[in-house]
Amino acid sequence: MNSAANREIHLAARPQGWPTEDTFRLATTDVPTPGPGQIVVRNTFMSVDPYMRGRMNDVASYVPPFALDAPLDGGAVGEVVASEADGFAVGDTVLHGLGWREYALLDASTVRTVDPALAPVSTYLGVLGMTGLTAYAGLLEVAAMQPGDTVFVSGAAGAVGSMVGQIAKLRGAGRVVGSAGSPAKVERLRALGFDAAFDYHDGPVLDSLRSAAPDGIDVYFDNVGGEHLEAAIGAMRQNGRAAICGMIAQYNAAEPPAAPRNLAMIISKRLTLRGFIVSDYGQLGEQFVQEVGGWLRDGKLSYDETIIDGIENAPAAFLGLLRGENLGKMLVRV
Amino acid sequence: MNSAANREIHLAARPQGWPTEDTFRLATTDVPTPGPGQIVVRNTFMSVDPYMRGRMNDVASYVPPFALDAPLDGGAVGEVVASEADGFAVGDTVLHGLGWREYALLDASTVRTVDPALAPVSTYLGVLGMTGLTAYAGLLEVAAMQPGDTVFVSGAAGAVGSMVGQIAKLRGAGRVVGSAGSPAKVERLRALGFDAAFDYHDGPVLDSLRSAAPDGIDVYFDNVGGEHLEAAIGAMRQNGRAAICGMIAQYNAAEPPAAPRNLAMIISKRLTLRGFIVSDYGQLGEQFVQEVGGWLRDGKLSYDETIIDGIENAPAAFLGLLRGENLGKMLVRV
Repeated sequence: MNSAANREIHLAARPQGWPTEDTFRLATTDVPTPGPGQIVVRNTFMSVDPYMRGRMNDVASYVPPFALDAPLDGGAVGEVVASEADGFAVGDTVLHGLGWREYALLDASTVRTVDPALAPVSTYLGVLGMTGLTAYAGLLEVAAMQPGDTVFVSGAAGAVGSMVGQIAKLRGAGRVVGSAGSPAKVERLRALGFDAAFDYHDGPVLDSLRSAAPDGIDVYFDNVGGEHLEAAIGAMRQNGRAAICGMIAQYNAAEPPAAPRNLAMIISKRLTLRGFIVSDYGQLGEQFVQEVGGWLRDGKLSYDETIIDGIENAPAAFLGLLRGENLGKMLVRV
Repeated sequence: MNSAANREIHLAARPQGWPTEDTFRLATTDVPTPGPGQIVVRNTFMSVDPYMRGRMNDVASYVPPFALDAPLDGGAVGEVVASEADGFAVGDTVLHGLGWREYALLDASTVRTVDPALAPVSTYLGVLGMTGLTAYAGLLEVAAMQPGDTVFVSGAAGAVGSMVGQIAKLRGAGRVVGSAGSPAKVERLRALGFDAAFDYHDGPVLDSLRSAAPDGIDVYFDNVGGEHLEAAIGAMRQNGRAAICGMIAQYNAAEPPAAPRNLAMIISKRLTLRGFIVSDYGQLGEQFVQEVGGWLRDGKLSYDETIIDGIENAPAAFLGLLRGENLGKMLVRV
């Protein structure tokens, strides 16, 4: 097997502003051989996520930056093709953190076996994985959504946003509003059960939000930042809470936006804005799998996937994600 | 007594930007006579507070706007001079909400008797009153300060800020940093036990803050907003918390400042920004009086007062407060 080729995607340059195809380089190496306690996994799906943009900068953050001229990494699922580790057999399906390559060499301690009979393996990267937990933890723990609340989520047709809206409804939100970037996405949100949805290109976000939630909002789940956050603050009722998950609108901006300009409302309305990272909410994992897995089984929760084929197209998948070309979870089938 | 004159301050015009002497009008009326269940109080001290600037705008907020051509109101203490209410006798000292006038007509249910033997009556407007509770609730409840935390407070030589810093030290903060607007105020902060203090005119706030707290801050108590809030976000450690109490830097701004421009850090650092209004924390009142009263009695807590004499000078006192001319609590001796 060592003579086979392993293709992987390296970081070729740190982007200034928007990344391009030149940010990446396709490299070919040998398929690795496991040492004691290690396994080799042939990846079948890998995830591309907005947070990866931050790791392309040479800035210390909650995850270390990607190294130049080395493979990127991120969530992936695949099949064990060689094992020198107890508890892992060839043919097992596993979830791990070394995507962006065809074959991954892994210490067994960093890998989790998943059951492909319970759910499609791709869902362990999406609705049943980090994406779903992000929505679940952010909405229910960080923003502490209560039954009856009016909830607004931006980037609502994305992997996290579409879960937020559906979980809000399933947990008894009074009204759920989503924003997205195209008429087709808005249509999809209505089909998913959002009470109202709008295309943020159609006018000032605050105007659209006020029309969609005339009595104001209690909870805002922020995937976008910038004008969306300012509009949410403007529309919030007393004691409103925002879970700040992402600010994709400004990840590629050379200068951050001068917003929110209405932050003084945080006092008069007693608002709470709280940023969070899903990895801090691992203790919710069991409850999450039980509750969300149950909804999935019962057909109460839908999810979309946008799948791009071929490791060589992973950069294009990531760039498409930043431009909002995905509906639901953006995945690369390796 | 009805033939005596009662002088009071009316709102003559709603200010655009900074208020001026023309914002106010001194008016003379008759001293009122109490009806059943009412008392008349001759005010001895009245409070001027930054939040009153917001009430001069015709905007619904957590307190209604001041009416035009009618007396302003706000915290005051005084002596009962006439009573038609059970439980109130002429000569009692009371705390109430009708300042900005020499004589106040009050329903007894809106008045609280205080003991002038326990503490100087002015302190019921300051360290033992709303001002002290604002500091106490904001620091300990809203920002959830823990022993060992590094705490930064802006407007630290003001009535609230100077309490925040001292309460932080008394409750076991690891390091307490304050900013203020003059060398004399910075000197005073050091005397009050702040570990570090700086004059925000001396350079970018973030630079001064980084020098004063090289390892970052855990808690920020915001009285100022704008550049101070941006600097605090920049200096915050993981899981930092900001209690947003006031934004005096921008109360008179025609356009809000384009800050904080670094709000995306709220995600990577898992920050919480929370606005609050002291009136939501009345349930802490008993604990507050016990703990802060005890510190005062034991000489562990100092407070400053800047006292202006004469109801006719209340507008000047308020304008001076907005310009930062006070050390500690700004009061008018009526």
